[in-house]
Amino acid sequence: MFTDSRYTFQAREEVFDARVEIIKGGPIRAVGEYLRAKRRKVRVGYSAPHTTVAQMEALRAIAPDVRWVSDKDAIEDLRSIKEPSELAVMQAAADLISNVVGGLIKAIKPGISELELAGKIEYGIKLGGGSGPSFDTIVASGPRSAWAHAQPSPKKLGKNELVVLDQGAILRGYCSDLTRTVFVGKAPKRVRDLYNAVLEAQQAAKAAIRPGVTCGAVDSAARSVLTKRSLARYFTHSTGHGLGLEVHEKPRLGRGDKTVLQEGMVVTVEPGVYLEGLGGIRIEDDVVVTGNGCTDLTSTSRELFEL
Amino acid sequence: MFTDSRYTFQAREEVFDARVEIIKGGPIRAVGEYLRAKRRKVRVGYSAPHTTVAQMEALRAIAPDVRWVSDKDAIEDLRSIKEPSELAVMQAAADLISNVVGGLIKAIKPGISELELAGKIEYGIKLGGGSGPSFDTIVASGPRSAWAHAQPSPKKLGKNELVVLDQGAILRGYCSDLTRTVFVGKAPKRVRDLYNAVLEAQQAAKAAIRPGVTCGAVDSAARSVLTKRSLARYFTHSTGHGLGLEVHEKPRLGRGDKTVLQEGMVVTVEPGVYLEGLGGIRIEDDVVVTGNGCTDLTSTSRELFEL
Repeated sequence: MFTDSRYTFQAREEVFDARVEIIKGGPIRAVGEYLRAKRRKVRVGYSAPHTTVAQMEALRAIAPDVRWVSDKDAIEDLRSIKEPSELAVMQAAADLISNVVGGLIKAIKPGISELELAGKIEYGIKLGGGSGPSFDTIVASGPRSAWAHAQPSPKKLGKNELVVLDQGAILRGYCSDLTRTVFVGKAPKRVRDLYNAVLEAQQAAKAAIRPGVTCGAVDSAARSVLTKRSLARYFTHSTGHGLGLEVHEKPRLGRGDKTVLQEGMVVTVEPGVYLEGLGGIRIEDDVVVTGNGCTDLTSTSRELFEL
Repeated sequence: MFTDSRYTFQAREEVFDARVEIIKGGPIRAVGEYLRAKRRKVRVGYSAPHTTVAQMEALRAIAPDVRWVSDKDAIEDLRSIKEPSELAVMQAAADLISNVVGGLIKAIKPGISELELAGKIEYGIKLGGGSGPSFDTIVASGPRSAWAHAQPSPKKLGKNELVVLDQGAILRGYCSDLTRTVFVGKAPKRVRDLYNAVLEAQQAAKAAIRPGVTCGAVDSAARSVLTKRSLARYFTHSTGHGLGLEVHEKPRLGRGDKTVLQEGMVVTVEPGVYLEGLGGIRIEDDVVVTGNGCTDLTSTSRELFEL
């Protein structure tokens, strides 16, 4: 593991099972010189989606004898299965976001703006020791909650509105990702039915997860619950995605995806429905694939919270 | 400008002087297909430090007739000179962080932790309409302030300590970057002298900035003030860096750098001294190069604030 003197302390805390070398002049130069010093032909794989053209040009110039093998899958496949030491950190990152959201949901008052609430969530992540949010926090209320990627706005949370809260923390390099949907006021039967349908879809997906099952089968388990209630057309994205050092990594719980789940993979399970005008409902947890099923990493209550 | 339906609204607000095309299937596919549809040989430059090997492989496969020209400077050079519409947004991003820091400094109380204060800063950025911090906020107190890149820790601000606050906001895509150093308590003469030396170095650098001057000459202006006071060995980084869509872009105000400043460039000016045990002092503003000098974009008071 090559890093520079700014990160000596952090590397000591965050790097498992690897020798840390403190370098000068940047990681590309350090890697290139390390390989050149081998003085023989070596074959080195690199992750094409994580290496820029300029970095490859520099590496080829510094270490011209290396045979570089471009690979877009090997490193990501390796990363998709987490080791126990990684799972411990991911559990802590999930606990952090579960606690922040669980604590804040109870304190939400109508009149607070989406931006204020997003700010409080990110403040909670920092306070809990996280290095920051794992993506731009989403707080979307009323009709805006029907946009799957709404950015928080100065809009205030109004009475009788759905609010989607989608957020995650980075802790010691690893990401968590959690969504909860709350209702400001007493939810009408229509909203309650939609909420229960999404929750049932999520439970069906979790029940389908175990080693040997395809990602597509998990997606289908969630989707068929919503199809039965004629809601499938409102479920406009895939059921989930892998999670780790990045907030989106392999595998993807997408329709027809043939990737086979393996023990140690960590994925989000996040079905949702989005009805223009009414709003959106999404419930998302992070789970780890175990020997015979899956276990939740995130723990915030999944009951419909009525403010 | 190619983007997808998640960003329709944001593109309308943030894209100047370009046609926006809402696409499906990702920007690489869209760009590739747009170029393929030209049905003739075209020569297209791309930024090698901003394009991954996987993206280039995909572009070459989709648009095999294009002659791709790798360039690591053209786009960055173009970006280094800001248009008036860009400067207006950068002024707003600078105002946002100036107001957040100016407001918070007055409210700092000993006993608050570095993490809490960093969280408050980032909350202020959100509340002010920023999409987030332009880098991980630095709050470093006591001996930790001597680390140029300290991450905020649970350590509480103690009496008679230096505290370095380094933070920035992203507003409509553009970054600001501001550092202030405060003293918890009444600063002893030693600290006051060091602070004034850094402030004088910063003023000397700003006074040197105008079109036609090299970046190295600006760095030298700051460095020679500190050399005269035998403090140059404690100034361990360069005087500043370009700022825009990214928090570090061209040009770099580094020792001996031959890049010539031009009107419309935006750079940080941030000399500092770091004394092990005692702590660090850094004062940073963002300035725009004008026809005959430079103007500050950031405005928080530069007097030594004693809490």
